[in-house]
Amino acid sequence: MPRVVIVGAGFGGLQCAKRLAGKPVEVLLLDRHNYHLFTPLLYQVASSLLNPSDIAYPVRAVFRKDRNITFRVAEVKGVDLERRVVRTEGGDESYDYLVLATGARVNFFGQDALAQRAFWLNDLPGALQLRNHVLSCFEAAATAADTTGAADATGTSVRRLLTFVVVGGGPTGVEYAGALAELVRLIAANDYPNLGRDDVRIVLVEGTGRILPAFPDALGAHARCRLERLGVTVRLSELVQSVGDGTVLLKSGQTIAAETLVWAAGVTPNCLSDGLAAPRRPNGRLEVDACLRLPGQERVFAIGDVAGYVQGGAELPLLAQPAMQAGRAVAENVLRDLRGLPSEPFRYKDPGIMATIGRNAGVALIRGVALTGWLGWASWLAVHLFFIIGFRNRIAVLLRWAWNYVFYDRPIRFIVREARRGVPHVRA
Amino acid sequence: MPRVVIVGAGFGGLQCAKRLAGKPVEVLLLDRHNYHLFTPLLYQVASSLLNPSDIAYPVRAVFRKDRNITFRVAEVKGVDLERRVVRTEGGDESYDYLVLATGARVNFFGQDALAQRAFWLNDLPGALQLRNHVLSCFEAAATAADTTGAADATGTSVRRLLTFVVVGGGPTGVEYAGALAELVRLIAANDYPNLGRDDVRIVLVEGTGRILPAFPDALGAHARCRLERLGVTVRLSELVQSVGDGTVLLKSGQTIAAETLVWAAGVTPNCLSDGLAAPRRPNGRLEVDACLRLPGQERVFAIGDVAGYVQGGAELPLLAQPAMQAGRAVAENVLRDLRGLPSEPFRYKDPGIMATIGRNAGVALIRGVALTGWLGWASWLAVHLFFIIGFRNRIAVLLRWAWNYVFYDRPIRFIVREARRGVPHVRA
Repeated sequence: MPRVVIVGAGFGGLQCAKRLAGKPVEVLLLDRHNYHLFTPLLYQVASSLLNPSDIAYPVRAVFRKDRNITFRVAEVKGVDLERRVVRTEGGDESYDYLVLATGARVNFFGQDALAQRAFWLNDLPGALQLRNHVLSCFEAAATAADTTGAADATGTSVRRLLTFVVVGGGPTGVEYAGALAELVRLIAANDYPNLGRDDVRIVLVEGTGRILPAFPDALGAHARCRLERLGVTVRLSELVQSVGDGTVLLKSGQTIAAETLVWAAGVTPNCLSDGLAAPRRPNGRLEVDACLRLPGQERVFAIGDVAGYVQGGAELPLLAQPAMQAGRAVAENVLRDLRGLPSEPFRYKDPGIMATIGRNAGVALIRGVALTGWLGWASWLAVHLFFIIGFRNRIAVLLRWAWNYVFYDRPIRFIVREARRGVPHVRA
Repeated sequence: MPRVVIVGAGFGGLQCAKRLAGKPVEVLLLDRHNYHLFTPLLYQVASSLLNPSDIAYPVRAVFRKDRNITFRVAEVKGVDLERRVVRTEGGDESYDYLVLATGARVNFFGQDALAQRAFWLNDLPGALQLRNHVLSCFEAAATAADTTGAADATGTSVRRLLTFVVVGGGPTGVEYAGALAELVRLIAANDYPNLGRDDVRIVLVEGTGRILPAFPDALGAHARCRLERLGVTVRLSELVQSVGDGTVLLKSGQTIAAETLVWAAGVTPNCLSDGLAAPRRPNGRLEVDACLRLPGQERVFAIGDVAGYVQGGAELPLLAQPAMQAGRAVAENVLRDLRGLPSEPFRYKDPGIMATIGRNAGVALIRGVALTGWLGWASWLAVHLFFIIGFRNRIAVLLRWAWNYVFYDRPIRFIVREARRGVPHVRA
């Protein structure tokens, strides 16, 4: 049977493999992690609302009954397009068809200081680190407020610990800033009687003149208004110049004393560490033709965030929907090719975009209809709940949302790390 | 108001603080972590059944409404009994009454190789590390079985990755071995079609002639029989001589090739890193008088695993119940002292002991009545559910147990670590 290797078990890779289940192909699905991650809700893990297990799903459990699909945890280093093999640490894997669905990672634009100090919201390890850090800041601030005698010194230290700078006014930055503001309001009021609500500052920094640039103007303005009502300071047309130890210097010259900088200002495609001899677009995404194939390659596809597919003059956005649709389209074309049929060009059908800004507040653009406030929020909930994989996870998320909504409680506020000593390396 | 400092928010410290809530004392409760941990269920986190958040509870949430109780995350380095202060990294804290409830940690008996290679089940970071490691072993074994050509080499590698040695036949070792055997049976059968059930070996090593030495003979024999039915090899009167890279050498001379060694063979009391000028018992636990006071100290108490309280000729066992009862007794004596009344000696009322060995199997000794099988298991479930702190956690654990029971599923099998780069140190 022809062998299809899919690199990445994100939205695109998973849909592609699902569509090939039970078909006359042998599928090898590879991912660095043993789970598929519902990334749109990562910010809720980072803000102590959801458990990691609520938004992750073991890949092996997805394909438990599909005997033509093999999953393996592996990091793909490179692809040899001539020899038709992907290179992993455990050895080479040959393919007849290759689907690159490696996604994107946070882009620090080569700034080392930023990479060392900033937090990010693109993966589970990063979200857990951010959660632990924010809670640690509150504990340290409470200790400082309790124990320091000199009022001035305390004030400075507490303020720096409780200032959170979020960079990037896209959905990730906006949603996290809103969720953080709600967390802060809940726990500052209830758990830290010696810290005032006014000690906390959340600053959202966006380079363009408005937040949520992908949405219509009115929705961006609505989101900004809701964020400000939650106490978030929105700084538009502003950039981060540099970061230091506990400070963030803005382009305008202002220095913010802050222990926490969350970088949600851009991602870069994961184009394999040992490289891939294929043309890229200026932003680094792989060039693909109308059927999502690499140029000159009949049987090598790229989908999702790693691929720069142009439709209607613009690249598809870095969202779950384009990746999922592309994954299914590629699977269909592989099957067509096997039956000797010509490939069909991919056409993305935009179901809409949405973002939430805390309790009862959201913005959505669905088939041209703009929704705001409670309606935007409710449709956001419904859509996300629908797309979470697995019945158990859906129930878990729904219960947690309900708990939070009714009791104004964020139950998962633990500073928990894996044991600190080096993790024993598993020798394969 | 007189100031009571309680070091440790485990079972003993938490009960002591609760009993002092609303009383005419100022309480400062200190712990290294921001959560209280229901340690009896740690082994279920390590075996992918429960989430960390199911068995942890934020300490601040416990005392949210008690304004005379202050909680702080701090590691206590030492105590100056003369000056009546406890030393923390953030400075000294003075006390009128001091309650030491620092618990115990795993004891590797000074063996460096063991400390570097063994896993433990005493805290959440250790349990998470063990969970990640066991799942990584399965992934590595699946890859080895898939990719290695030479059958012999594969066999060796797979067998080493899938051999799990658990040392210590007390409740921790027995319960983890049983839970691991069930996890293995479930995931080996469903998720790893290329790994056979026979490739997996779980070996429980116990130094004495029987497992569960604290239980009556018949219950120990029953537990052993149930473990063996689950596929666990029980090695009695056996000790671990040394551990190497992927090997465990037993005292009897046998070498087991195993990637995983879980050390549940003893703990040592946490007697503060910078020491404490107080007499200890031969096993390291602090000596205490009939009222749980350090010798010669009227207002310094020790409770739980750190204290060696002798009753009826034997020290109290290292369990939640003695710690909780002692915590309440100490709180009462502090209040009596404030009213000018003499202290009352502590008397532990043993409610029984119990352990579970997988589905429908448990052993319990409750007020002299021995329960085994389904009855032992059901009473174990009921008692543990009752003592978990917090309504939300109780519901969460109950739902997860029900899910596991009905669907034979362990949903939380994720290899997830916090981001690998150094955690930014929060400067207080």
